Amino acid sequence: MTVRESWFPSHVRDLTPEECQDLLESQQIGRIGFTDPAGPVVLPVNYRMVGGCVVVATSPYSSLARNVSSAAVAFEVDAIDEFTESGRSVLVRGRATVIERHELRDVDLPQPWAEGTRTLIVKITDAEISGRRLVLA
Amino acid sequence: MTVRESWFPSHVRDLTPEECQDLLESQQIGRIGFTDPAGPVVLPVNYRMVGGCVVVATSPYSSLARNVSSAAVAFEVDAIDEFTESGRSVLVRGRATVIERHELRDVDLPQPWAEGTRTLIVKITDAEISGRRLVLA
Repeated sequence: MTVRESWFPSHVRDLTPEECQDLLESQQIGRIGFTDPAGPVVLPVNYRMVGGCVVVATSPYSSLARNVSSAAVAFEVDAIDEFTESGRSVLVRGRATVIERHELRDVDLPQPWAEGTRTLIVKITDAEISGRRLVLA
Repeated sequence: MTVRESWFPSHVRDLTPEECQDLLESQQIGRIGFTDPAGPVVLPVNYRMVGGCVVVATSPYSSLARNVSSAAVAFEVDAIDEFTESGRSVLVRGRATVIERHELRDVDLPQPWAEGTRTLIVKITDAEISGRRLVLA
């Protein structure tokens, strides 16, 4: 059921939980994976880490909003250097939980780059977090 | 059923089919989204565009291999500039089809950065491709 198997089979090692959190804290953009009636969807999103959990803000009218409430979701961040052909990635698997605005401090609210009505705030709870580092041969 | 709605609601425009292909041709790494028994998964992968289709190579023993054969998958690439807070992303939704090695020219075989036995080649067929550009206010 887990996806700890190496995508890069022979030269990968797992990241420690601390390394996973470090990577999650260091990035601004991740990709959220969810399922709509036609199948899997992957979209880039701004996010914040709040108390160790991924938090994203979206429009109540978005595809994400319509499909993720209380649903299983995946969230991926990576830091990849194409020049050295190396990198790290973290996968968060959990449940999308809609939370109220007042449950977050202002500083913890994700700031999407484009304007819009992103009044729906989604937190990924009950998360299983794993990460991998690509080690060059 | 489609995901053309804007993730960035007010300052986004759709990419043209040509712009989508340009972005797909310009990148080396995308993120594949699929579903395993526990829910959605998103993993970074090397890929090649072959005849307008996304092609990835994986190990026959990977989570991807076990879960995607003939299944609906999503594939996302993006080019995001955190400094200017702008970017483009493309989403490919289709069916994962296992193809034989001899169906590809050597130059079309994805070259994963790490060594390993990536003898399973997966092509995303019957794809619906859409893309969005984040336009700054």
